[in-house]
Amino acid sequence: MSSVSFESITQAGARIRPYIHRTPVLTCAVLDRMAGATLYFKCENFQRAGAFKYRGACNAVFSLEDNDAVRGVATHSSGNHAGALARAASVRRIPAFVVMPDNAPSVKVAAVQSYGAEIAFCKPTLEARKEVLEKVVAKTGATLIHPYDNPQVVAGQGTAALELISETGELDIVMAPVGGGGLLSGTAISTKALLSHAMVFGAEPEQADDAFRSFKGGVLVPSVNPNTIADGLLTSLGELTFPLILRFVDDILTVSEDGIKFAMRLIWERMKIVVEPSSAVPLAAVLECPDRFLNRRVGIILSGGNVDLNKLPWTGK
Amino acid sequence: MSSVSFESITQAGARIRPYIHRTPVLTCAVLDRMAGATLYFKCENFQRAGAFKYRGACNAVFSLEDNDAVRGVATHSSGNHAGALARAASVRRIPAFVVMPDNAPSVKVAAVQSYGAEIAFCKPTLEARKEVLEKVVAKTGATLIHPYDNPQVVAGQGTAALELISETGELDIVMAPVGGGGLLSGTAISTKALLSHAMVFGAEPEQADDAFRSFKGGVLVPSVNPNTIADGLLTSLGELTFPLILRFVDDILTVSEDGIKFAMRLIWERMKIVVEPSSAVPLAAVLECPDRFLNRRVGIILSGGNVDLNKLPWTGK
Repeated sequence: MSSVSFESITQAGARIRPYIHRTPVLTCAVLDRMAGATLYFKCENFQRAGAFKYRGACNAVFSLEDNDAVRGVATHSSGNHAGALARAASVRRIPAFVVMPDNAPSVKVAAVQSYGAEIAFCKPTLEARKEVLEKVVAKTGATLIHPYDNPQVVAGQGTAALELISETGELDIVMAPVGGGGLLSGTAISTKALLSHAMVFGAEPEQADDAFRSFKGGVLVPSVNPNTIADGLLTSLGELTFPLILRFVDDILTVSEDGIKFAMRLIWERMKIVVEPSSAVPLAAVLECPDRFLNRRVGIILSGGNVDLNKLPWTGK
Repeated sequence: MSSVSFESITQAGARIRPYIHRTPVLTCAVLDRMAGATLYFKCENFQRAGAFKYRGACNAVFSLEDNDAVRGVATHSSGNHAGALARAASVRRIPAFVVMPDNAPSVKVAAVQSYGAEIAFCKPTLEARKEVLEKVVAKTGATLIHPYDNPQVVAGQGTAALELISETGELDIVMAPVGGGGLLSGTAISTKALLSHAMVFGAEPEQADDAFRSFKGGVLVPSVNPNTIADGLLTSLGELTFPLILRFVDDILTVSEDGIKFAMRLIWERMKIVVEPSSAVPLAAVLECPDRFLNRRVGIILSGGNVDLNKLPWTGK
């Protein structure tokens, strides 16, 4: 699999510009005081389809040659990538086929359906997903667009940091949550190309710490029985993203479930924006490891805002 | 009581500019499709202290002569004005005395306390509030800053529409929720001065429809036993605001409680922002009276974002 260059990220930026939102960068004086740092939040919760995933999906969909595109695109996804790919496909007016686990949040299933994609449900295991997806691809001739282990997808995700840094200028640290590693690796490539002194940190739930263990051990470790409220971060790093993270990321910090819930509620209450739990993981790391961030200028990618409003962590079961 | 001119609003804009946020104007393609209109949302939920009230409070506090200011400011308020006045006073480093009903939402009480104001609780009746407030003013010599029946406050609230229109240009309709009428009258004065053809609508809960009845009857009717989730809209119009509304507002539309809850949830889910129920009342009116808005460019003031996240309308008892 070919790797991802900074040039491919700037090309992605130009390719997807007509289709995506240039999302705002917000600050919050109260959170800065709590953190003892200056925090810049890149609000991908305001992105079309509700998450940064739309960047990568758009880049992949609009990179296809016409004769491939007509047969459509296909993927398996626990949620945001599925919605994003379905929406991007609908914009290009090509079919989208999505394999989803039968326990996916209803709000994400509804989003995928609303964009006109064809959904095939499967059991919530990686094996079941792959099996059903292979059948779909064999039958339709659609192009498989992996949620993160795809160079166009990673390049698209890297455009969020591109926009962030163009707005903030110098930063000491740039952070993103890490699930499959598409956002984190794209963010790291952009940051290292644009800011010679900045460090890049991934943030991950303790209870889904495969990226942390892979990074520390230097060997790709799969995610086994992850158990976290951050439902966007359940997947394992991939063959494409793991080497990029080893090369461009400075550290991965893990956070508690209580820390994620606390940070999520802070963002809602103080910034007045709706973010999903995965988005709160970097802020949780800032608040749980304050020494690493004291007096620093910190860019944080808020990854998405697709949350089921009937099931908030602070309103019980 | 002196009235409020457009000039006093532009002066207020210059006076408070160093202290307030120039809040963003957001749009949402999904809501536009649902409404059959083009909607521009002025996001005062992102304002300091969480609501437009900070504009009026700042204008009142920074309009005081120094020898009055040292003795502080005082008010009674069900919430957002209290927090706003407390914050504005803390910025000018003068005391704030706030009379609050003992059933005020805890999140609003906490906000007022966090700004260092002195709180006196009273029974949740207008009589009790006034009585306690008179005692506080007599004892401290503080200047009473009424939540809406105050020319500096109304002028401050009018600056939100000033900013909105400077960003959108021509609008066919500008809307604000109406409680005491400070936001609506300020919005109407700005709109009529800047846009010769635009109409101004107030939006009000059916179950707190004193402004609607006062407007239609031409006689000020007090709010009696209002019963609405829109806790910012419980108060009656005042002696200052009622004549301004009669003169500058074209109509007042009332909406159902279910309509408010539906619109509030739509804003959270589709725009990914946190607004309080009062903020959702104008969108509820757009969705309940679509004929009035079809193909129009509509500016809507989202009044605030101070909501108790433990008590959301859709997470039930």
